[in-house]
Amino acid sequence: MKVRKFAFADASFERSPGQDGDVFAGNVIDQRHGGPITIGYGRYGPHQSIDEVLAVDDVMIVLEGRLSVSSAAGTVAAGPGEIVYMPKGQSVTIRSHEQGAVTAYVTYPHWQDPTSESGK
Amino acid sequence: MKVRKFAFADASFERSPGQDGDVFAGNVIDQRHGGPITIGYGRYGPHQSIDEVLAVDDVMIVLEGRLSVSSAAGTVAAGPGEIVYMPKGQSVTIRSHEQGAVTAYVTYPHWQDPTSESGK
Repeated sequence: MKVRKFAFADASFERSPGQDGDVFAGNVIDQRHGGPITIGYGRYGPHQSIDEVLAVDDVMIVLEGRLSVSSAAGTVAAGPGEIVYMPKGQSVTIRSHEQGAVTAYVTYPHWQDPTSESGK
Repeated sequence: MKVRKFAFADASFERSPGQDGDVFAGNVIDQRHGGPITIGYGRYGPHQSIDEVLAVDDVMIVLEGRLSVSSAAGTVAAGPGEIVYMPKGQSVTIRSHEQGAVTAYVTYPHWQDPTSESGK
């Protein structure tokens, strides 16, 4: 694999699985590329909330807006330039606020089933 | 491991190994925490240049400023919110420009030798 650069506009966004809200994920690198990790961008509309049990280690870097992440450890809030690390096995609720949010994410291993066509 | 949030101020920066320039890395999650990935922040002064052969898969998210990454695939330039994926085994030269840069990074596996005390 080669060195590659990605911008938000490179992501093809799909609705997060099991969700019907305004929360979308778009991988730019994933199981189709042969490496060990998935990389992508996330997009949250205002006042959204999603519940997830982490099937993989997930690192979320907030690029715009603000997100709150609630788990057994309590609630953390992250804004631009801040990182939330969500280890595999954790149950989380991710909430956006009035301005929505844009994130970058990296997961190990791939969060998406290689046989699946659905989004995050 | 629990869900954790990090900001730039949480990183303890050390000079990148084998470098004597104004380029620093600070892990916030690494081999000491028992998970599979390393997470950290990078800080580049103006007009710096570092050469690296990637020992691990390395994802760099530019948070401030601008970086150029040259490799066998050519040169890519990345600004705020853009991602550069540097697969294991690649040789890269990373250059900062007049305003320097701040990055977040995620590597798989850990880039740092567990027995080492030195920085990235």
